Amino acid sequence: MTTLESLARAVPADIIISDPDVMDRYLHDDAEWAPYGTALAVIRPRETAEVVAAVSWCIENRVAVVPRGSGTGLSGGANALAGCLVVSLDAMDQVLAVDPVERTARVQPGVINDDLRKRVAENGLWYPPDPASAPWSSIGGNVATNAGGLCCVKYGVTSEYVLDLEVVTGTGKLVRIGKRTAKDVAGYDLRALLVGSEGTLGIITEITVRLLPLPPAATAIVGYFDSLVEAGQGVANVTVAGVIPSALELVDSYCLRAVDEWKNMGLSAEAEVILLAATDVPGAAGEEEARTIVHAFEEAGATFAAVSENAEEADAFFAARRLAYPALERLGPVLTEDICVARSKVPEVLAAIQEIGERHDTVLAQIAHAGDGNLHPLLVTPVGDEDARRRAQAAFEDIIAVALAAGGTVSGEHGIGLLKREGLAAELSTDVIDMHVAIKRALDPHGIMNPGKVFEMPAAG
Amino acid sequence: MTTLESLARAVPADIIISDPDVMDRYLHDDAEWAPYGTALAVIRPRETAEVVAAVSWCIENRVAVVPRGSGTGLSGGANALAGCLVVSLDAMDQVLAVDPVERTARVQPGVINDDLRKRVAENGLWYPPDPASAPWSSIGGNVATNAGGLCCVKYGVTSEYVLDLEVVTGTGKLVRIGKRTAKDVAGYDLRALLVGSEGTLGIITEITVRLLPLPPAATAIVGYFDSLVEAGQGVANVTVAGVIPSALELVDSYCLRAVDEWKNMGLSAEAEVILLAATDVPGAAGEEEARTIVHAFEEAGATFAAVSENAEEADAFFAARRLAYPALERLGPVLTEDICVARSKVPEVLAAIQEIGERHDTVLAQIAHAGDGNLHPLLVTPVGDEDARRRAQAAFEDIIAVALAAGGTVSGEHGIGLLKREGLAAELSTDVIDMHVAIKRALDPHGIMNPGKVFEMPAAG
Repeated sequence: MTTLESLARAVPADIIISDPDVMDRYLHDDAEWAPYGTALAVIRPRETAEVVAAVSWCIENRVAVVPRGSGTGLSGGANALAGCLVVSLDAMDQVLAVDPVERTARVQPGVINDDLRKRVAENGLWYPPDPASAPWSSIGGNVATNAGGLCCVKYGVTSEYVLDLEVVTGTGKLVRIGKRTAKDVAGYDLRALLVGSEGTLGIITEITVRLLPLPPAATAIVGYFDSLVEAGQGVANVTVAGVIPSALELVDSYCLRAVDEWKNMGLSAEAEVILLAATDVPGAAGEEEARTIVHAFEEAGATFAAVSENAEEADAFFAARRLAYPALERLGPVLTEDICVARSKVPEVLAAIQEIGERHDTVLAQIAHAGDGNLHPLLVTPVGDEDARRRAQAAFEDIIAVALAAGGTVSGEHGIGLLKREGLAAELSTDVIDMHVAIKRALDPHGIMNPGKVFEMPAAG
Repeated sequence: MTTLESLARAVPADIIISDPDVMDRYLHDDAEWAPYGTALAVIRPRETAEVVAAVSWCIENRVAVVPRGSGTGLSGGANALAGCLVVSLDAMDQVLAVDPVERTARVQPGVINDDLRKRVAENGLWYPPDPASAPWSSIGGNVATNAGGLCCVKYGVTSEYVLDLEVVTGTGKLVRIGKRTAKDVAGYDLRALLVGSEGTLGIITEITVRLLPLPPAATAIVGYFDSLVEAGQGVANVTVAGVIPSALELVDSYCLRAVDEWKNMGLSAEAEVILLAATDVPGAAGEEEARTIVHAFEEAGATFAAVSENAEEADAFFAARRLAYPALERLGPVLTEDICVARSKVPEVLAAIQEIGERHDTVLAQIAHAGDGNLHPLLVTPVGDEDARRRAQAAFEDIIAVALAAGGTVSGEHGIGLLKREGLAAELSTDVIDMHVAIKRALDPHGIMNPGKVFEMPAAG
């Protein structure tokens, strides 16, 4: 009996994909620079029991498991390992329940972020986490990477909205972990440990999320700046003014031009850099907050700063922000940074990044969740230009070094996957990495759960 | 060389307390019903290096370590084990830094919650977590138990305000874990794992907390009800109305009378139960929210419901809420529940609790963070009345059973300690308890960190 025949006895044959041509799209995520191997097979389970069966089979046969959502990750966390079983959760895509009294929703991992948002809006409810990939990324993937988004500056990251998880562990057990109620401190916060663990501790098969009432309509504030440093100062000024906007994004003119060339939105600024802010505080207090933000932009040297009187214009700017990444991908493979630094360091770090791009003669576009200090320099290389690729890789490493020297992190929201493992090893102390290793061994004693992602396991000893 | 002499070589002799009379107040927390043993000694370190030295000594000598803050815990988590070393962090009580731009504060674990709140208010900043013990409890203890409070209904629990921790681990290593920046997904969320772990995974020696701008002045709303069920319905109505108040507390007349008898505040209600709500939404939107809450109370059958026009009156009600627990303690040993249930189940669970009190002929007072479904039935027994004590214990267990049957948890915010270990074992599946055991073994391989608290470790095998 071949290994594939054995697998087909463990799980229904019709959920197995082993045709190399069909498998290919399941073998990697959206991190174009990260390596991936050829899987033994891909399965697309329809229910939790099939995931349990698959993991049990993998334990028995010592086959590595690589879980994936919709493959929009930017760090290679879902990339196939040679000979692994890819478990794609995309077919488990049902919203199982929405509870308007408790303000919760229970969903399968394959539900697309935007679909959940639309579904709960019918009940006047809101699922805040809004990665720019929201139209395509799945809640399961969002949870596995602890995804962020534009809302985080005011509303926090995915972890703050995950109450309860159903997980198939590395020992093949099906467990429910997390909060049953609004407050719950019964035992260790295993929920938080699993959120953002990038499939290395278990496979998430069901998620209960916390919802908020739909926020009031937001008011947008736009600022034009001649330089990244001035825009960065605009961000710092907003913070010092004691305002927490509901979004505070930075987009440079390179990104705006790329979006224009693709979508003809006509946004290419008369500015080198724009800041997009929003406030969803209702009434007079919101108007005052918007004025404070305009003032903070002006004090930083904005050439233009105003409350957007036109909802369509404001929507267009935010749409352009969300389209920046796919627009750049049209120009060539994009290597994405995801560093996060203290808000006060944003001006100097933006300037240092620009200098690194110039020094390595690399096309470098900047978008940022600026209000969080979460910067996404995007390194674009022409297809097939190996020398440009080497220069971009060198720039990538220099940017990480700048972030760490500024006391920042290598990943604000995309996760470590394969692309940032070295960065993580540089960021955390050996003792902290040892704690990761000890926990992984404790919860995944067979070493089958997405091994080698996030950090390398030392040989057992 | 005696063991004590050996300890005095490992840490400065002047931080060691071994006089039984002086030690006594360090041997237990405020859970009057939880057992405690006689420690080998108590130490009061002045700096992190002394904690590292003490833990290393404990590893070498296989002595259990019991960390403690200011001993206001309500589950026995800080209670001494026979022959253990109690590490009291109360002398490490400095606010090390406040950063108004990043809105963070770096503190030692012994800083009292209210002292931190006052300190950061000087910078226009706010540390939201506000357990009723805030005038006495320490930030380190708050973090170790993931303390809640009145603010949680809108602002969440302690974990949401902890960015970064310095921890002495079970292997005697000094590590920094957590977020360096507003967003940080680099590696496992060890920070969240340590928060609420009740000293079983390490000793917290420094904490960086996230702060918010000071909120606008709150408006209070008071509702009087004839029954717990009607008050519970008032809570459910507020939730369904889509309002998230900044506090939503329940106090029964038994508690109000106890406070009156102690403090002569003249609050004993013309009501059996009062609900205290607050809104800190500014301006007209806040006024509307207050009216919505009044309406929600009236619809539930309130005999009186109104926005408090008088700040002093509102302050008195909230002060009474905070004083309820110490007021009851004056009447005899108090056994405190901390169950949390879904908001929609609050009316039926409050009624079931009342019935349990009557059935077991036990004095039972009710306070609750009602907006979170976090209920604190308080069982009061006369000093020395063993029969009353047995009846109260039976009531305690029945209340936990009701909470679990309603899909709730045994602890919303106080932690498990010793008092709720059986409840935790009933709440979590064996597989989830096994995950706890595996993690504890991984991070505390010598089994010295507050062993036997939260869950019992099986014999190694």
